[in-house]
Amino acid sequence: DDRFASSAIRDLLHHARREDIISLAGGLPAPELLPADHLGLLYTHVLDTVGSQSLQYGVTAGEPALRGLLALEGSGDPDRIVVTSGSQQALDLCLAALRPAHRAAIAVMEEPGYLGALQVLQARTYELSPVPVDQDGLCVDILEDRLRNGLAPTLCYVNPTFQNPTGASLSRERAHALVDLAERYGFIVIADDPYRELYFDEHRPPDQLRDSDMVIRLGSFSKTLAPGLRIGWLDAHQSVVARVERAKQAADLHTSTINQLVVAEAFGDKPWWNNHLDDLRTRYRLRREALSDALTTHLPHATLANQAGGFFWWTRLEGMNTDTFLTTCLEMSSGGGTAFVPGSAFHSGAAPSDHLRLSYSTADPTRFDEAAQRLANAMERAPAGKEGN
Amino acid sequence: DDRFASSAIRDLLHHARREDIISLAGGLPAPELLPADHLGLLYTHVLDTVGSQSLQYGVTAGEPALRGLLALEGSGDPDRIVVTSGSQQALDLCLAALRPAHRAAIAVMEEPGYLGALQVLQARTYELSPVPVDQDGLCVDILEDRLRNGLAPTLCYVNPTFQNPTGASLSRERAHALVDLAERYGFIVIADDPYRELYFDEHRPPDQLRDSDMVIRLGSFSKTLAPGLRIGWLDAHQSVVARVERAKQAADLHTSTINQLVVAEAFGDKPWWNNHLDDLRTRYRLRREALSDALTTHLPHATLANQAGGFFWWTRLEGMNTDTFLTTCLEMSSGGGTAFVPGSAFHSGAAPSDHLRLSYSTADPTRFDEAAQRLANAMERAPAGKEGN
Repeated sequence: DDRFASSAIRDLLHHARREDIISLAGGLPAPELLPADHLGLLYTHVLDTVGSQSLQYGVTAGEPALRGLLALEGSGDPDRIVVTSGSQQALDLCLAALRPAHRAAIAVMEEPGYLGALQVLQARTYELSPVPVDQDGLCVDILEDRLRNGLAPTLCYVNPTFQNPTGASLSRERAHALVDLAERYGFIVIADDPYRELYFDEHRPPDQLRDSDMVIRLGSFSKTLAPGLRIGWLDAHQSVVARVERAKQAADLHTSTINQLVVAEAFGDKPWWNNHLDDLRTRYRLRREALSDALTTHLPHATLANQAGGFFWWTRLEGMNTDTFLTTCLEMSSGGGTAFVPGSAFHSGAAPSDHLRLSYSTADPTRFDEAAQRLANAMERAPAGKEGN
Repeated sequence: DDRFASSAIRDLLHHARREDIISLAGGLPAPELLPADHLGLLYTHVLDTVGSQSLQYGVTAGEPALRGLLALEGSGDPDRIVVTSGSQQALDLCLAALRPAHRAAIAVMEEPGYLGALQVLQARTYELSPVPVDQDGLCVDILEDRLRNGLAPTLCYVNPTFQNPTGASLSRERAHALVDLAERYGFIVIADDPYRELYFDEHRPPDQLRDSDMVIRLGSFSKTLAPGLRIGWLDAHQSVVARVERAKQAADLHTSTINQLVVAEAFGDKPWWNNHLDDLRTRYRLRREALSDALTTHLPHATLANQAGGFFWWTRLEGMNTDTFLTTCLEMSSGGGTAFVPGSAFHSGAAPSDHLRLSYSTADPTRFDEAAQRLANAMERAPAGKEGN
């Protein structure tokens, strides 16, 4: 997802596609974990059994088979579900549906937070009210202070589990407090939760946000199955669903029928699905450990956020301006460079940061050691970067 | 596309899904013309040859293979192409990209015109300036009068070939005049052209709109291949493309990678593609003739628009209020009813109309005679409908 960074960073990372660069920037799934053979069988199966209906126009809210399966994971009510073209579209449609027509709207946003959310909030002309994220997720006490002082947001966006970029999960206490605030002050909580299945401890982290008419949950098959299918969903109160459906009908009529049916086959086959998720967890955990080992060896001064899931090591190089450092890392001519996303990219104000996001999800893990070595070499060559600010 | 009608008509047509109703309302492709077997082979082929990359995140503007093929049909320049989730999304993204931020925007819209365009224009808060359509398409002279009198639209939306719902094609003279006006008065012409390949005369109707920076062309594989894939595109000046790309990135990141690659395989195989289109033309022409025969037999007073392509017979029952008539047709208890879309649904003001749109694209053609008989029976039973308005 280097595509979401500011244009300056995007330009830099565009150069990072050179052969000699090891990119730890993108948050893409590991190519070897995309189940191409299994999905090939499912496309054939769907076309054989459903036939031309799988290629026909479908209903705007989504295929009943998939809505039913998704409802079983949540409230049990398929009418609360809208299938979307990835959770990015679920977010865009929520923003369209919730946006008041003739006045300004304010969105509370995690800082640092997901670049794609920052981008679509701006596209839908929301004013941002950024609230810091620490190791327990959004600092709900800071939000509460602002609400007491008159902040009247339309919505608050959070990644509740293994947040992008910090990896933090919202604590139980904060999650309860956040929903209480949403009900008291009348704003919607949009909980975008694509990483919750990718946990590396023994148990799946619980969904801490209690059920409330003020909570919209977004989900995605992009990290658990395949992003190229573009299948996500939202689970919301029916009054929101009705508005989202109208927005989706205007936006693109409906999401690909055949892709929805293929996902329903994969997701509905629980023995296959559970085995597949176990495999993802094992392999991403090994990738995470490999990058941790490499960083500990070559960058002993780096601080790694202590979280156990998702795609990213949120890393601090104390006092370093990581925007400048990225330029140095990409310009390394001898031995090639390493790409990452500097912390500034996850801030609405794009102020320099001494954090960087390193993804272990995509690159070849046998090159993690070399990548960390290159970062260490770049640090030696770039004392100017240490001026920070 | 009965989904786009006003909520009252939508409720009526929802009942039209009853078993005993013959629906000539929807504008869906014929199920038997959706090439399920061939597409099954192509999904397998793409997954075998491209592998996991076909399931991965893709670039926002679309897969290079498909953009290249689409460019060959137009300007030759792939950088003018953005692949979208159906042409409905292409339209939505154009409206987002062209919308001025802090003031009202006016869209010139065909009347009668495509319901999905009416809907998304309203969702994107454009004010409508409806201009009549006759047998030669948009009445450009009426538009010119308005422009002279101070109308300053942001854009003008047209279906240039076999327009939905009238079947009319924009004449060469009017197309030239329209682009001249767009350049002189500074507005964009959005030419949404999903039916041009479905011609029933000997030759494909030419694209009458000359190339201009003020013209955006929208295309779709929904009528020529399969709507359930959700693949459309736009072809525009690069300054528009850059804005559309940003809007698409915010809206849904990109369109399904695997579906784009499957479409590229089908569309790029010219012997198969041309043979497939020939087959569609033959079969839709036969369907059109079958419905014409049935209407001529049972409704000799109906006037049929004399156009030779697309999915619809635009039909006039002089003096009849077709909203009232639809209610009567759906309530037919003995022998079942027939559904259609009344003319009012294609007008922004939803005033009653004595036109109706009859689709020959979807229903079983062996039932066209029965459908027309039912319409004739309903006319006898509903003299009240003849009061007009």
